[in-house]
Amino acid sequence: MLFLARMDVTFPESMSDETKAEFMAREKEYSGNLQRTGKMRDIWRVVGEYSNYSVYDVADNDELHAILSGFPMYPYMKIKVTPLAQHPNAIK
Amino acid sequence: MLFLARMDVTFPESMSDETKAEFMAREKEYSGNLQRTGKMRDIWRVVGEYSNYSVYDVADNDELHAILSGFPMYPYMKIKVTPLAQHPNAIK
Amino acid sequence: MLFLARMDVTFPESMSDETKAEFMAREKEYSGNLQRTGKMRDIWRVVGEYSNYSVYDVADNDELHAILSGFPMYPYMKIKVTPLAQHPNAIK
Amino acid sequence: MLFLARMDVTFPESMSDETKAEFMAREKEYSGNLQRTGKMRDIWRVVGEYSNYSVYDVADNDELHAILSGFPMYPYMKIKVTPLAQHPNAIK
Amino acid sequence: MLFLARMDVTFPESMSDETKAEFMAREKEYSGNLQRTGKMRDIWRVVGEYSNYSVYDVADNDELHAILSGFPMYPYMKIKVTPLAQHPNAIK
Amino acid sequence: MLFLARMDVTFPESMSDETKAEFMAREKEYSGNLQRTGKMRDIWRVVGEYSNYSVYDVADNDELHAILSGFPMYPYMKIKVTPLAQHPNAIK
Amino acid sequence: MLFLARMDVTFPESMSDETKAEFMAREKEYSGNLQRTGKMRDIWRVVGEYSNYSVYDVADNDELHAILSGFPMYPYMKIKVTPLAQHPNAIK
Amino acid sequence: MLFLARMDVTFPESMSDETKAEFMAREKEYSGNLQRTGKMRDIWRVVGEYSNYSVYDVADNDELHAILSGFPMYPYMKIKVTPLAQHPNAIK
Amino acid sequence: MLFLARMDVTFPESMSDETKAEFMAREKEYSGNLQRTGKMRDIWRVVGEYSNYSVYDVADNDELHAILSGFPMYPYMKIKVTPLAQHPNAIK
Amino acid sequence: MLFLARMDVTFPESMSDETKAEFMAREKEYSGNLQRTGKMRDIWRVVGEYSNYSVYDVADNDELHAILSGFPMYPYMKIKVTPLAQHPNAIK
Repeated sequence: MLFLARMDVTFPESMSDETKAEFMAREKEYSGNLQRTGKMRDIWRVVGEYSNYSVYDVADNDELHAILSGFPMYPYMKIKVTPLAQHPNAIK
Repeated sequence: MLFLARMDVTFPESMSDETKAEFMAREKEYSGNLQRTGKMRDIWRVVGEYSNYSVYDVADNDELHAILSGFPMYPYMKIKVTPLAQHPNAIK
Repeated sequence: MLFLARMDVTFPESMSDETKAEFMAREKEYSGNLQRTGKMRDIWRVVGEYSNYSVYDVADNDELHAILSGFPMYPYMKIKVTPLAQHPNAIK
Repeated sequence: MLFLARMDVTFPESMSDETKAEFMAREKEYSGNLQRTGKMRDIWRVVGEYSNYSVYDVADNDELHAILSGFPMYPYMKIKVTPLAQHPNAIK
Repeated sequence: MLFLARMDVTFPESMSDETKAEFMAREKEYSGNLQRTGKMRDIWRVVGEYSNYSVYDVADNDELHAILSGFPMYPYMKIKVTPLAQHPNAIK
Repeated sequence: MLFLARMDVTFPESMSDETKAEFMAREKEYSGNLQRTGKMRDIWRVVGEYSNYSVYDVADNDELHAILSGFPMYPYMKIKVTPLAQHPNAIK
Repeated sequence: MLFLARMDVTFPESMSDETKAEFMAREKEYSGNLQRTGKMRDIWRVVGEYSNYSVYDVADNDELHAILSGFPMYPYMKIKVTPLAQHPNAIK
Repeated sequence: MLFLARMDVTFPESMSDETKAEFMAREKEYSGNLQRTGKMRDIWRVVGEYSNYSVYDVADNDELHAILSGFPMYPYMKIKVTPLAQHPNAIK
Repeated sequence: MLFLARMDVTFPESMSDETKAEFMAREKEYSGNLQRTGKMRDIWRVVGEYSNYSVYDVADNDELHAILSGFPMYPYMKIKVTPLAQHPNAIK
Repeated sequence: MLFLARMDVTFPESMSDETKAEFMAREKEYSGNLQRTGKMRDIWRVVGEYSNYSVYDVADNDELHAILSGFPMYPYMKIKVTPLAQHPNAIK
């Protein structure tokens, strides 16, 4: 079952560059694991913004919320989730 | 080069069911061709709405506009395009 | 798996009162069936608006889209779906 | 008499993790009590957001405001309340 | 129990001046009755708009919805309802 | 001449509870005086929000601005003013 | 007492050019009279839009509503009114 | 003096394809003339929308309004104008 | 050439009352000079808000930007500019 | 391939004037280089705002994101990108 998420990241003014770099490293690992297990099918950068669109393949809403709220940067993200269904014109 | 599009369809009140069915058939064929040539990578229905999110892989903006404005239902669609870049955390 | 939907109904100006009454009767039957099978857990009228909030318990996004797009008044509805997860403070 | 509320929580940047944990514990107790007394009929997490939708069954607007403003996290919540009426298609 | 409503009226283009005048006469009577029974405490015109703010004193949400949906012009109104509570600084 | 105002209060994160309590006491007195002189006809709490709707009866715009900007909490309020006229259906 | 109004005009699709021209002529006369009596102090076209900003000098809200609702094109206008007060930095 | 305009075109449902084609031809000529005289410096299609961004070089606001309201499709356009100034980082 | 500007002022929480008073004094002088030279034709307070609408008569966009960005409080203002043209119904 | 970007700059309250000046100098150099290499075709100040509209000529989305995220002030910018296509009425 697929969901599209848009995530916008805003770091607080007081966060040091070191802390940011740490968050980014943990995020990269977390995100890589989600992709290797097939939970995250795609992740793209929105051009010009500290934002992504990403696609999740999960069993249910609870699993999706667990995944999203597990992102290291979750407290600094604004996330909007769109549930996706099979499109009648899709050939796969 | 990838782009995400959200398309919302609104048919005019006066359109007959036959005309709608015709549009849908032409749309299905057009959309199928785009997928078979790899121009459209994904298309999903937004749950509960006459809308889709779709992902395009094109050479440039002009090709994308030609594809989008070529949809049979284009005059009845509101389309918003988001340019996508490689995400640093993507593993592919 | 639960979803909250808000539905706003707008009938076209040209629709006769008879047709509206027919739609309402079919809607009532459809909605009643969804409730009897447990697919729709709740439906409430938004005070002062031709709108409802309703709660769905479905197996997945595709089932939800099939249910929503099956409403007789679907072509006249604007629907917004919110996926719901278990709240840590819920006691059930 | 039922009301739907959407609550979005934003903690100030300066709040320590300990204080947050304390707030969450008090919130859980307050929310549990409301559910045990039947004042809060449902509470759901919005997937991907630090937000909930919750349903209240109260005698009047003053009782609802007392309940909502009594939440320990009230100063950090943005709340929007929607009054609900019996829907003609509801079977209960 | 008090509620504030904002009502915005839009007549369809095809409605004749006679029909409009009839609606206005029925509206005036309906609105007058609500005021005489104390259900509607106030009604004001928004300067420069075909809109009003009005205040209702009702027993519950269902009574309010019955009153609002009973307005002769209800099908042509967009209504937004705000539930009101006693303000701590009010002297009455 | 009547005006409707909606006021939304947001205190800065750094303000102590003592300062808040002081502001509230001064606000209560100011608001009480306005009501006793008939300048403020009504004030209601918006359920679930640190907000009010209030109705003013003043001689002109300058008097209204003087009253509103004189609220002790004025620097922490977002105020939106709507000028009201006599409604043709009002019976008083 | 001054008010700023923004007016946006939208004619219905079915209105003939003759009717439009008639409306414009009546509007010009009405607007001219308001200016000659000093009720309308200024009127400017918003560049690129069928809209104006205009400034009114009236005794009270009721007079302003009478003036605005008296515009021949009133049924085709969306009007937003902003009450203006003396600015402390104005030298007149 | 430069201005950026965004124009969104919406044709009425009742307009025939012939009339549309006529409008487009007249628009092309009008737009070409503006470019040849240097009044319009650039015009770009917004990808996926019946919209353009265009840049105008005019003597003053009145000239710009005359140009914009002279577009054959003006009655079917929603235009938003942004006045532009020299940017300190521009090298020309 | 005329422009309408709406300016909304927000001072940072940390600014002392002395600094604010200083800014206001400098602003008053700057604004007075603009009025005496005829560059600013009008300035009005928006009732209930720390905002103004003001009208500028300038030679071009660059002059307007220089004037606006020269306001002492410019870093604390959100400004929206609307270019104005001669209205066909204006008698002056 | 062309893109239009709108950039709005907001510096944090705590940033010193020296740091701001440094950022501006680095920004000027970066922006100048982009113009000299032809990557940035135009940059204009939005009158009255700390914002610009700028036009980029790049090979693809990834190049554009690299350019935009390389701006020294990027962490303090909100950027919105619009992909542009050839307009049928453009003469160049």
